Amino acid sequence: MSAWYLAAAKQLDQEARQEALTRQSVLTKPPGSLGRLEAVAVALAAMQGCEQPSLNLPYIAIFAADHGIAKQGVSAFPQVVTGEMIRNFAAGGAAITVMAKQMGATFTVLNMGTAFPVEPLPSVRSLNIKPGTDDFSKQPAMSDQELMSCLQAAADFIDEIDADLFIGGEMGIANTTSASALAAVMLGEQAEALVGPGTGVSSDVVMHKAQVIDAAIALHGVRREQPMALLACLGGLEIAGLVGAYIRCAQRGLPVLVDGFIATVAALMAVAINPSIRGWLLFGHSSAEPGHRKVLAALEAEAILQLDMRLGEGSGAAVAYSVVQSALALHRGMASFADAGVSGADEV
Amino acid sequence: MSAWYLAAAKQLDQEARQEALTRQSVLTKPPGSLGRLEAVAVALAAMQGCEQPSLNLPYIAIFAADHGIAKQGVSAFPQVVTGEMIRNFAAGGAAITVMAKQMGATFTVLNMGTAFPVEPLPSVRSLNIKPGTDDFSKQPAMSDQELMSCLQAAADFIDEIDADLFIGGEMGIANTTSASALAAVMLGEQAEALVGPGTGVSSDVVMHKAQVIDAAIALHGVRREQPMALLACLGGLEIAGLVGAYIRCAQRGLPVLVDGFIATVAALMAVAINPSIRGWLLFGHSSAEPGHRKVLAALEAEAILQLDMRLGEGSGAAVAYSVVQSALALHRGMASFADAGVSGADEV
Repeated sequence: MSAWYLAAAKQLDQEARQEALTRQSVLTKPPGSLGRLEAVAVALAAMQGCEQPSLNLPYIAIFAADHGIAKQGVSAFPQVVTGEMIRNFAAGGAAITVMAKQMGATFTVLNMGTAFPVEPLPSVRSLNIKPGTDDFSKQPAMSDQELMSCLQAAADFIDEIDADLFIGGEMGIANTTSASALAAVMLGEQAEALVGPGTGVSSDVVMHKAQVIDAAIALHGVRREQPMALLACLGGLEIAGLVGAYIRCAQRGLPVLVDGFIATVAALMAVAINPSIRGWLLFGHSSAEPGHRKVLAALEAEAILQLDMRLGEGSGAAVAYSVVQSALALHRGMASFADAGVSGADEV
Repeated sequence: MSAWYLAAAKQLDQEARQEALTRQSVLTKPPGSLGRLEAVAVALAAMQGCEQPSLNLPYIAIFAADHGIAKQGVSAFPQVVTGEMIRNFAAGGAAITVMAKQMGATFTVLNMGTAFPVEPLPSVRSLNIKPGTDDFSKQPAMSDQELMSCLQAAADFIDEIDADLFIGGEMGIANTTSASALAAVMLGEQAEALVGPGTGVSSDVVMHKAQVIDAAIALHGVRREQPMALLACLGGLEIAGLVGAYIRCAQRGLPVLVDGFIATVAALMAVAINPSIRGWLLFGHSSAEPGHRKVLAALEAEAILQLDMRLGEGSGAAVAYSVVQSALALHRGMASFADAGVSGADEV
């Protein structure tokens, strides 16, 4: 019996997709003039299996975890901040919690494992797979069994939520280093071409990050053809959680709005593990992190927003959510040329 | 006594701007990590004169008019569509009316003058400056007096509305040709470098548009140092309306969210006439029309969205409005590092 995460995604409804495309062509606007909003509406029609899709139950889950690689001085923030930000999520003071309230989204934090203990908090589930990954500059970040636990915990979570759109966020000091390492192997790039300031380090630290990553890739000898081994060697508990969540969403037929660089790297890994899920992923924004555009290109993804955001937490996807809602409102609410008595384009 | 449209814009509040900048620096996120959302919140703080601005009364006005240049075969749609779309606005079936409803915006159409009569309709004011402009390939589009009437009618309208944000849209068959002609003179470019498919003409028609524009510019001999004469010779009644509205908004202290190519050309003309207004303009989106980026660059403006939209009507600004609301919600709602007990960045 093959693993659950290899099972095919739910089929997209090609008939609904075609009906939505036809509808776009008769609305009172020049064909194509709503740009990418048209593609968003059509994609969601195929996912929901109806000509006029709507979204009413957005769900935001933050996967949080610590990273052993933080010991190598790759982040601007001390490792204690991962737990502090989990408390800030619970108290409603973080960017993503402000956005969740504005969107009317259900909000949960999955603490996959922090270096410092976090007390029980509202909206936070403690999964504690392990107290942060091991330092991947010296050893694999996690064991195969720990990776399986991350994927399974995320899938179990997705199975139980009531939602019609899923946004996965992440929080973990040093996780741009882990994500950049994964992307470097997957894209066949030197780390230097991908790493950036993360949440705000100097150019010296950026160079140091790149060297740490390239050395770690050489140490583990992992290749892109082995996405599971790659995740275990260089990944993070929260990145693995996102991978499991994305795969399960697609199997369940729950549309996903992917966030920034780290979430998009998780999407890249998820698609490498199970290519059938690709059609269930929408991409919220293209961030200021240099590697993000390359990872989006590798997924043949066009992001909805380009706002130079680089915060993570699901914040970019949450801002994009209102644009998705505009796309759907236009798709459902506009009149057709025939209904409105408006003349179509001349044959020119 | 100098003309009303040359009077200075309301002063921006630099103290509130500084307070908002300071607030952004202490919220629980790496500095700058909300990208352009931070600049939007800070700009509105300066406009509203308070550290934590909010928007509750958006107002959308569509300036509609016909263009004599349509006789030269520059548009994909017949001229009768301008009036038909006014009826579609009144009936609520157009993209911008769907967006106005979603935003909770007040919505009005100002019919500046159509070639075909439009009966009285709800939400539509008939100003009827003239039944569309004259064909500017042969004579000035409007007289100086007609231009003054457009500017004044728009200013009178802005004086009476109850709003805290203004979006001006436009509708007028062939108005990308007028806007491209204005932009060509203002930017010192050949028309070929600016014109595009508008709402959907073929490449042959695009070349024809460029030739019509370059010939008209040569005919009238107008220069960028004469923005009023330029507007009269090559402009449109609805473009002049937008110019008057933007100037009056800035004088009144009403923030403006500028829409696409045509609206941005109107903003360029308004700033050329009265440079003091620039600080009151936010820019909603960068469209698929080739000249739009160049006009935005001339205004040193960074647009909020890039969605390849090219519909006009204020639709891009309306989609951007929800992103502006997200920027303000984050600015007001996030906790500071001190309040949340989160450690700041290390000195790295």
